[in-house]
Amino acid sequence: MPEVKQHKILLEESELPTRWYNVLHDLPTPPPPVLHPGTGQPVGPEDLAPLFPMALIEQEVSTAQYVDIPPEVLDVYRLWRPSPLFRAHRLEAALQTPARIYYKYEGVSPAGSHKPNTAVPQAYYNKQAGISKLTTETGAGQWGTSLAFACAQYDMECEIWQVRASYDQKPYRKMMIETFGGTVHPSPSDLTEAGRAILAADPDSTGSLGIAISEAVEVAAQDPTVNYALGSVLNHVLLHQTIIGEEALLQLAKVGETPDLLVGCTGGGSNFGGLMFPFLRERWAGRMDPVVRAVEPSACPSLTQGTYAYDFGDTAGMTPLMKMHTLGHDFVPDPIHSGGLRYHGMSPLISHLYETDEIEAVAKQQTECFAAGVLFARTEGIVPAPEPTHALAAAVEEAIRCRETGEDKVILTALCGHGHLDLPAYAAYLEGSVTDTSWDDSELQAAVAQALTRLPQLA
Amino acid sequence: MPEVKQHKILLEESELPTRWYNVLHDLPTPPPPVLHPGTGQPVGPEDLAPLFPMALIEQEVSTAQYVDIPPEVLDVYRLWRPSPLFRAHRLEAALQTPARIYYKYEGVSPAGSHKPNTAVPQAYYNKQAGISKLTTETGAGQWGTSLAFACAQYDMECEIWQVRASYDQKPYRKMMIETFGGTVHPSPSDLTEAGRAILAADPDSTGSLGIAISEAVEVAAQDPTVNYALGSVLNHVLLHQTIIGEEALLQLAKVGETPDLLVGCTGGGSNFGGLMFPFLRERWAGRMDPVVRAVEPSACPSLTQGTYAYDFGDTAGMTPLMKMHTLGHDFVPDPIHSGGLRYHGMSPLISHLYETDEIEAVAKQQTECFAAGVLFARTEGIVPAPEPTHALAAAVEEAIRCRETGEDKVILTALCGHGHLDLPAYAAYLEGSVTDTSWDDSELQAAVAQALTRLPQLA
Repeated sequence: MPEVKQHKILLEESELPTRWYNVLHDLPTPPPPVLHPGTGQPVGPEDLAPLFPMALIEQEVSTAQYVDIPPEVLDVYRLWRPSPLFRAHRLEAALQTPARIYYKYEGVSPAGSHKPNTAVPQAYYNKQAGISKLTTETGAGQWGTSLAFACAQYDMECEIWQVRASYDQKPYRKMMIETFGGTVHPSPSDLTEAGRAILAADPDSTGSLGIAISEAVEVAAQDPTVNYALGSVLNHVLLHQTIIGEEALLQLAKVGETPDLLVGCTGGGSNFGGLMFPFLRERWAGRMDPVVRAVEPSACPSLTQGTYAYDFGDTAGMTPLMKMHTLGHDFVPDPIHSGGLRYHGMSPLISHLYETDEIEAVAKQQTECFAAGVLFARTEGIVPAPEPTHALAAAVEEAIRCRETGEDKVILTALCGHGHLDLPAYAAYLEGSVTDTSWDDSELQAAVAQALTRLPQLA
Repeated sequence: MPEVKQHKILLEESELPTRWYNVLHDLPTPPPPVLHPGTGQPVGPEDLAPLFPMALIEQEVSTAQYVDIPPEVLDVYRLWRPSPLFRAHRLEAALQTPARIYYKYEGVSPAGSHKPNTAVPQAYYNKQAGISKLTTETGAGQWGTSLAFACAQYDMECEIWQVRASYDQKPYRKMMIETFGGTVHPSPSDLTEAGRAILAADPDSTGSLGIAISEAVEVAAQDPTVNYALGSVLNHVLLHQTIIGEEALLQLAKVGETPDLLVGCTGGGSNFGGLMFPFLRERWAGRMDPVVRAVEPSACPSLTQGTYAYDFGDTAGMTPLMKMHTLGHDFVPDPIHSGGLRYHGMSPLISHLYETDEIEAVAKQQTECFAAGVLFARTEGIVPAPEPTHALAAAVEEAIRCRETGEDKVILTALCGHGHLDLPAYAAYLEGSVTDTSWDDSELQAAVAQALTRLPQLA
């Protein structure tokens, strides 16, 4: 009779953490301020007020260690949270590794990823501030789905500009947004000045995240009852995601485990920060000492190949300037299947932690990641989104290293979403049509250097 | 501050039931035997041995009250089981009903439905019997996905014939099957005599479930190392699904609830039977007295409009004869979006329970079901598969009735899967292009009567 193995470590709803953790309180050194692009001076609340409610602006700059989660947000979180932590017994067996691999799974959420963790409180605080509608951009559609669901919880409208190329090629996400009650426009649209200007110049434009942001911001800025919401990069977004790491700490404690290595994928940084920040707090307090490793795609390697400099958050250059690891705000990455990782910059908080050697980073080619994703699906029964296959590939790499050294390391992986709506990417991989980045480092460095010459000279 | 509401009732893995419940042991009257179409005599194990391993044949006819679940099956079950039971607080609030609505959610499984509950033990028992490959048919693809995953757990091959129309129109399911390591052919194929005969007559055939069964059975029958697997209808399939009801009983007991009404959708009957059979045992033992209601689509109403007669399980007339509620084995239902409910007959066990007044049945039009599905998605955060929206529509109907009468009934609903790969059906509903069945009862009755004239005269 085989040994009885526990696959899932669950928390009761009564064990759901009731506070978010603010890493700003405990950073060994403070991060550089966000600057106004016109004045070069730190931005104040009044600069952000046209787009965001004051509660979120306060969270963006707060240095309090914890922020209480409103009961009305906790009630929605409990639809799927606490999310499960899994021990990957069957993956370990397939790898014949002495390592113990755990994964924190966010795919149980309404959108199928970690994004609702911040969409729900953002909608809630806007509703409290009297806002009746939120606008946003979305690329592949995870963030748009999450915000549409969140708005439905508080009887708000949600209007979304989706990059035309994704709108046409990935219709399932649009359908899910509409099922949750959101409205989706392909971007560029004729509904905004920004969109009309683009269409006048190029009627066949397939759009970009930068154009979609411009359209969503334009609509929000014109109406005091409408605000804009962002799904990653900003401090308050990463704050909301720390519910992931707080739960994982409780779950590992239940089975008496302390992680030796944490791995997560990084696009804008919110999934990674959400899992890692509470563990960094534990490390700074001397209670554990895990290696914390970000995994980014070789096609868009902002941490490992980018420059640490002040840059815009959007392609069009409308946002405040943030000091971050960037490939240049007009850098266009090779098309890869992990749409959520195709961002030119990195969250200022994650960038600061990398710059100060609190975390490390590696880049992975996508065929290695899909291979790990297929192995994971066949052993653990979950088809992962392409984004977290980057984390899985790094976990598999470490587990194989452990097989060679005999180390029984504890590896904690951020599995930030399922891949049910990304199956065409798996089909492409299985038929051999997924390719790796062909550029060499010098070519990439030249492209980045050129992009950076177009930055304001503030850094 | 709002009241803290518990949304999920969870079980630890240590609470996972270790036995399946066999309703045959407790039936007030025994069901009619399965007959050999050639002799008209009850079939014996030797008739089934070319396709199924002896362990499953024994389960098909066993009258033991319980069957122990093998530890190797429990280890795979624990990847997702016990599955959660939810209290639908937010749906109740939207309906302003005093009813308490619970739903048992099987969408957390690798395939996203209840089907792996039987795919895993079927693969296991075949592997134990020395079988190295399983064949099957699949329509929309849920069953094929489940069997591909199950075969991957025991290092077996899985070869699937998918109805050509679904193969072409619903490519995501094929992609998921291949991600789990299965092989998919469109049916009719040129790989079998049955397929070649169809293609010779009609090169553009879009196939049918009956043709796909013929192809899968032909390949399995020719090779002693290859067997065939079926995903619904048969006694051993429903036996395996009783894990759902056993868990739900434990979960309701945790919150001190006894159901007044159980509702589940019925196609072949395995999801419905899986949840209901353990509750029928409790009723027969005098421990509760719930109403048990099957919900079928108006486009394929085998229980409410069909005849109780001996009929073939497949369209081509290759299977043994089963006494069941049937619309005639060559009845072709209107196209509806709930592919899993488009079956001409009903499991003999469910049919027998209906005939003996142990359960009741209603038929629902699909627009009412999609309306319930959209309401459910926006309140509970889960996009249901089209099939269980039939159960949700019946639950909503009862909850509204309770609002009018003031009754605080406890309603338990079988939510047998998510609709992530069915989003085009929601898009069609939201744009108004989903239509209800237009035939009147007399037209349907005439079609059924005609189909039944082609049956063997055994009943």
